[in-house]
Amino acid sequence: MVEPLLEKLFSRDKVGLAKLITLIENDDPVSDEIIHRIYPEMKNTCRIGVTGPPGVGKSTLLEKIIMELRKKGKTVSVVVVDPSSPFTGGAILGDRIRMSKVYLDEGVFIRSMASRGSLGGIADKTKSVCDLLDAFGFDYIFIETVGVGQVEIDIMDASHITVVVLAPESGNGIQALKAGLMEIGDIFVVNKGDRDGADQLVSLIRYTLELKQDKSQQEPMVIKTVATTREGVDELVNAVPNFCKSLKETGKFYVQKETWVRKEISRLVEREIVGSYWKDNTKRVILDKCVKDVINGKITPFEAQKILLEKMSETTEDTEK
Amino acid sequence: MVEPLLEKLFSRDKVGLAKLITLIENDDPVSDEIIHRIYPEMKNTCRIGVTGPPGVGKSTLLEKIIMELRKKGKTVSVVVVDPSSPFTGGAILGDRIRMSKVYLDEGVFIRSMASRGSLGGIADKTKSVCDLLDAFGFDYIFIETVGVGQVEIDIMDASHITVVVLAPESGNGIQALKAGLMEIGDIFVVNKGDRDGADQLVSLIRYTLELKQDKSQQEPMVIKTVATTREGVDELVNAVPNFCKSLKETGKFYVQKETWVRKEISRLVEREIVGSYWKDNTKRVILDKCVKDVINGKITPFEAQKILLEKMSETTEDTEK
Repeated sequence: MVEPLLEKLFSRDKVGLAKLITLIENDDPVSDEIIHRIYPEMKNTCRIGVTGPPGVGKSTLLEKIIMELRKKGKTVSVVVVDPSSPFTGGAILGDRIRMSKVYLDEGVFIRSMASRGSLGGIADKTKSVCDLLDAFGFDYIFIETVGVGQVEIDIMDASHITVVVLAPESGNGIQALKAGLMEIGDIFVVNKGDRDGADQLVSLIRYTLELKQDKSQQEPMVIKTVATTREGVDELVNAVPNFCKSLKETGKFYVQKETWVRKEISRLVEREIVGSYWKDNTKRVILDKCVKDVINGKITPFEAQKILLEKMSETTEDTEK
Repeated sequence: MVEPLLEKLFSRDKVGLAKLITLIENDDPVSDEIIHRIYPEMKNTCRIGVTGPPGVGKSTLLEKIIMELRKKGKTVSVVVVDPSSPFTGGAILGDRIRMSKVYLDEGVFIRSMASRGSLGGIADKTKSVCDLLDAFGFDYIFIETVGVGQVEIDIMDASHITVVVLAPESGNGIQALKAGLMEIGDIFVVNKGDRDGADQLVSLIRYTLELKQDKSQQEPMVIKTVATTREGVDELVNAVPNFCKSLKETGKFYVQKETWVRKEISRLVEREIVGSYWKDNTKRVILDKCVKDVINGKITPFEAQKILLEKMSETTEDTEK
């Protein structure tokens, strides 16, 4: 069932790609098989996260960046993650409207991620979707988030470079600085750069960066843009691949990949050992009894844990009888 | 170190309570010990979740409810969870302002939860904090969330009753209905009930509930309130304990508790088996090699998983040498 879709993906068919993403998104049992198959096809394309408070013009800016990259003949993909909203349909419609100039372009692929179901998994799923986009062979992979909460910061873990977009209004700048964005930003963009307060915001960011400057890290950039008139967009479009290149040259790109791979293998192993632990019927029976005993106040959950773990060592010989 | 704090908690000292909450919030290693000790002291107090879109007047309404309960001599605790904002300080300050009439009342305890760190854990932590409030002995335990995203819906899992607050404005009602709130609401409150559209919103909620009505479930209530003039607040204040009482009579309260206890025991057991798996140095060495091999394209993470799991069966005899 998944084989024809993979073939489509490898022959750069976007319908196959879209269907595979849906399977990953829905935690379909074939997800493992999909990831296993695409791993050897991945091209180590740099993944660029774009985050910042709502209303700073992230989508408009991204649209201009995409138009610029398309002029250079590059193919571009975007994953939009809106963890604060459970409305998938709405978000997709939103992208179509917001990025209407590029949405129908053959060399562009935009996909919104639903956040129904467990939130814990959304960063992992975003990463897997990027793996698919990488295997497909896009020249650029963007991850756009909508807000600036903890979820967004978690999601930025799936990118190699984080572009933090701010605007000189309504205290957004200061708020964002407080919200932990200073720690994750590689490129800071002050959009709506023609408005009052833009230069002060640039100074504020530079000052804060200097205070935090860790000499072992690549120095973050600060770029002022006006997305609507394309001012500064060229600079940004050039900065991104340069940043990626230097990540690869310094080896940081592979250190990042190592972290991901280690996490992925650990997750797979742990899922399996936990699954095989509970496969044993004896343990499930003991668990049922423990739950009752806790409810009746005879034991606490920690005593239940001890009882179940004592059973573990006996299991290998006992349970198969 | 934790013993004196627990003694304070058991003698109903709010300073001890606040410090224990901080330890739980920070994932302090003593968290397990704390939960273990308070389990026998829990009084099975009903936990009431209050959720709904921003701006519908949840805090004002809750303030009126608390004032009403205080008149009846009841003690009240509130956990405020704002997962979309990583600013703890701000949220706490916000509560003080928003609930200024009750904040300094001796019989009231209000606590904001930070959402720094992993989001996956915030619902679990909220539950543990409620365990503490239950052990302390408050008559009422409220959990208030700020938005209506997936996180908020997850957090409502920590409550026995969910009160969904809506208001007749800016399409909030319809949005909230779409966002999955219809599924989790036990009591629907249409606040700002004196505004245009309040009656239509009440009808819309009733109609949607009828469509979904599951005869095995307790029928959800719909109450119209005007928090500022206290209209409908009495009805709501009476509805909540009645709902709790019927949850206990029908046994649903204990079914809920069973789910929580089962989850808690499973989490503790799984944490331990995963931890003890990786304690083995051989496996960590193999993991390191697997990570390298995946990066170099020799194997995929799934092949790495197989290699590590094969090691598992050999471990019991081999590794201690």
